[in-house]
Amino acid sequence: MSLQKSWVESANSATTDFPLNNLPCGVFSVGDGDARCGVAIGDMILDVAALEAEGLLRLADHPVFDVPFWNELMELGPDAWADFRSQLAGFLTEGAPKRYLAEDHLVPQADAVMHLPFLVAEYTDFYAGRNHAYNVGSMFRDPANALPPNWLHLPIGYNGRASSVVVSGTDIRRPWGQLKPHGADVPQFAPSRRFDFELEVGAVVGTASEGMVSVAAADAMIFGYVLLNDWSARDIQAWEYQPLGPFQAKATATTISPWIVMRAALEPFRKPTPPREVLLLPYLTEPGPLLYDIALEVGLAPAGQPETVISRSNMTALYYAPAQQLCHHTTSGCPMTVGDLLGSGTISGAEKDSRGSLLELSWGGKEPITLGTGESRSFIEDGDTVTLRGAAIGAGYRIGFGECSGTLIAAHADPIGAGR
Amino acid sequence: MSLQKSWVESANSATTDFPLNNLPCGVFSVGDGDARCGVAIGDMILDVAALEAEGLLRLADHPVFDVPFWNELMELGPDAWADFRSQLAGFLTEGAPKRYLAEDHLVPQADAVMHLPFLVAEYTDFYAGRNHAYNVGSMFRDPANALPPNWLHLPIGYNGRASSVVVSGTDIRRPWGQLKPHGADVPQFAPSRRFDFELEVGAVVGTASEGMVSVAAADAMIFGYVLLNDWSARDIQAWEYQPLGPFQAKATATTISPWIVMRAALEPFRKPTPPREVLLLPYLTEPGPLLYDIALEVGLAPAGQPETVISRSNMTALYYAPAQQLCHHTTSGCPMTVGDLLGSGTISGAEKDSRGSLLELSWGGKEPITLGTGESRSFIEDGDTVTLRGAAIGAGYRIGFGECSGTLIAAHADPIGAGR
Repeated sequence: MSLQKSWVESANSATTDFPLNNLPCGVFSVGDGDARCGVAIGDMILDVAALEAEGLLRLADHPVFDVPFWNELMELGPDAWADFRSQLAGFLTEGAPKRYLAEDHLVPQADAVMHLPFLVAEYTDFYAGRNHAYNVGSMFRDPANALPPNWLHLPIGYNGRASSVVVSGTDIRRPWGQLKPHGADVPQFAPSRRFDFELEVGAVVGTASEGMVSVAAADAMIFGYVLLNDWSARDIQAWEYQPLGPFQAKATATTISPWIVMRAALEPFRKPTPPREVLLLPYLTEPGPLLYDIALEVGLAPAGQPETVISRSNMTALYYAPAQQLCHHTTSGCPMTVGDLLGSGTISGAEKDSRGSLLELSWGGKEPITLGTGESRSFIEDGDTVTLRGAAIGAGYRIGFGECSGTLIAAHADPIGAGR
Repeated sequence: MSLQKSWVESANSATTDFPLNNLPCGVFSVGDGDARCGVAIGDMILDVAALEAEGLLRLADHPVFDVPFWNELMELGPDAWADFRSQLAGFLTEGAPKRYLAEDHLVPQADAVMHLPFLVAEYTDFYAGRNHAYNVGSMFRDPANALPPNWLHLPIGYNGRASSVVVSGTDIRRPWGQLKPHGADVPQFAPSRRFDFELEVGAVVGTASEGMVSVAAADAMIFGYVLLNDWSARDIQAWEYQPLGPFQAKATATTISPWIVMRAALEPFRKPTPPREVLLLPYLTEPGPLLYDIALEVGLAPAGQPETVISRSNMTALYYAPAQQLCHHTTSGCPMTVGDLLGSGTISGAEKDSRGSLLELSWGGKEPITLGTGESRSFIEDGDTVTLRGAAIGAGYRIGFGECSGTLIAAHADPIGAGR
């Protein structure tokens, strides 16, 4: 597929994340105005809430954009999602007769503040990156038995905390927690000293399920994808995670990109999962390519200093695709809900500079990385800004997510006093 | 405290779960009528939605009972919760002048169908029963090291799946899942063969948090309590839970009682947590008695046969109280939300007949229990009904929850076909 040209000139650049081919879904506000649904096009946002209010955009017999989240469009199902993209193209395509109707409803992205694009119903995080699981297993167990025995048979996942999901740009407060440093006899309650990021892609579930769904049906349930940083306190995690898994280590925040890239925009970039090392049970078999060729990178910028790109990876490094994760999620009969968010797990490539967390990049702090500024990092320092970027690269265009960014701010001096 | 007398005669019996002292919160419907909020009194339900609609009950400058869930009353905060109980007493107390206003809004419980009493925002399950953790650790590790090293220092918890919470009376479908029986080389996808219940109490969070809260503040955030059965597929759990904890094993369903007993009704029954075996970090210290003397029991009835009580326990067997769990839940900065549900963890007593799961009662299936019918059980069989009951016993009255019950029905023959 090639670039679909728009009369919004900035959308035709090979460097924008938001050509007409993309049309990602966000929620924005300008000044004191209400937050509302919009679609990115070049360096502008098309105010779809306004278009709907004026009767120019109609998806159902009731409004779906009179709320500052995309869940109501999701509720309408895949046919409506396709209809929506088609109606938008009718406004934004080069030479579109309806151009004049849209012109008044374009807002510069530079003037807008972005909000969480959807109501996160529940949040599940997976562990579906082969290299990440191997690296972590090598560090904490041994390289010969790095992968847990179940890892090649099922997509391991755990439930996270939806209330902690925030939009790009939200400051992240360094958490307190129970830690037990090496050699200590008893745990202490202190700010985390090993605070980390995780490079992930999140799948947004757009239709609900009752009972188990097949991998193919699960794929069709996915409304779109976001970039996702599952902030992780490694020292809290190390002490708490046995035997019931990560809990407070992952509950401080999870940052997502402001834009949901709809599945349709990524169709030209489908890729199969890697070859299986052991045969999967039939229910998990890949019916067709389920991953996407999405180039990913992580930048880290100390306070007031330039950014260094510290990792470059690709979504194709996942061993289990989001559709396989979602299918497995329903095996027990677990009902899935519109607005559920599935984190892919950390997407580390095979090379050292493609690792998707500082835990792996610095090998547990034993091999600190050096930034372009000359500083070194084992984990994130106060004031550091971590930014994820990602795009599927087409011929003369790219399908991007915008930035998924957050700055770590210092822990509260007295966490209980800071609460209530 | 003694019985508070009501003109609703059935509320004055020593055997009802619902004297005037209780006033628990439920959602009910009659015939084809809408589901709405009601309060149990003796064998009747007071239709508080109708009282509010008629202007007889007023908690805020907007209605809170025009929805079939209690979250909007919770949102008003603890002062409103107290005001609500006081206004209800004004209708229901023996000799109350406002009796005539309430009489038309009483519905027999026998005519009502009960619904989920609140919107479950997120669901967390803890592991705070000392005997349960010891028993499970003894079975799966060894008795000398039964408790994980962190267990005596923090309330271990994991996030569960809110969408799977159902009200008492909902049938439970035996789940499929990945299992790896002892001795098998590879896993299989099959219906669970070791399906179990867990006897728990659930705390309903009634006010939201930002940042960390103290144990005392956490206690004040709790709106009330329910009985909770965290259905568990032990064979799915055994294969999946390393290293990130239980996932599909716990996602089939969690059943709660139809009635939320408000914290105020339980105040006379407060009891301290057991003596500490190691000193807790100061943030977790108990500021005053945090548990309640709630007698618990589990009944199991094979299809069409009488029930056998297979366990008798008490909430005071918990090592960490719900307020300590909730405080710990906020340590990382995790925002807690109105309608969050915290399962206590399985409440097993010290004696064999007080164990809160079949896993423990049958010692992993090695010592099947015998029912009154002569049948034996290691795990739950298709058609079995498991019922939890609980009550705080006062002088001549009891504060109960109603039954928390569910019947296990056979697995689908073809789980994907049964879904879509």
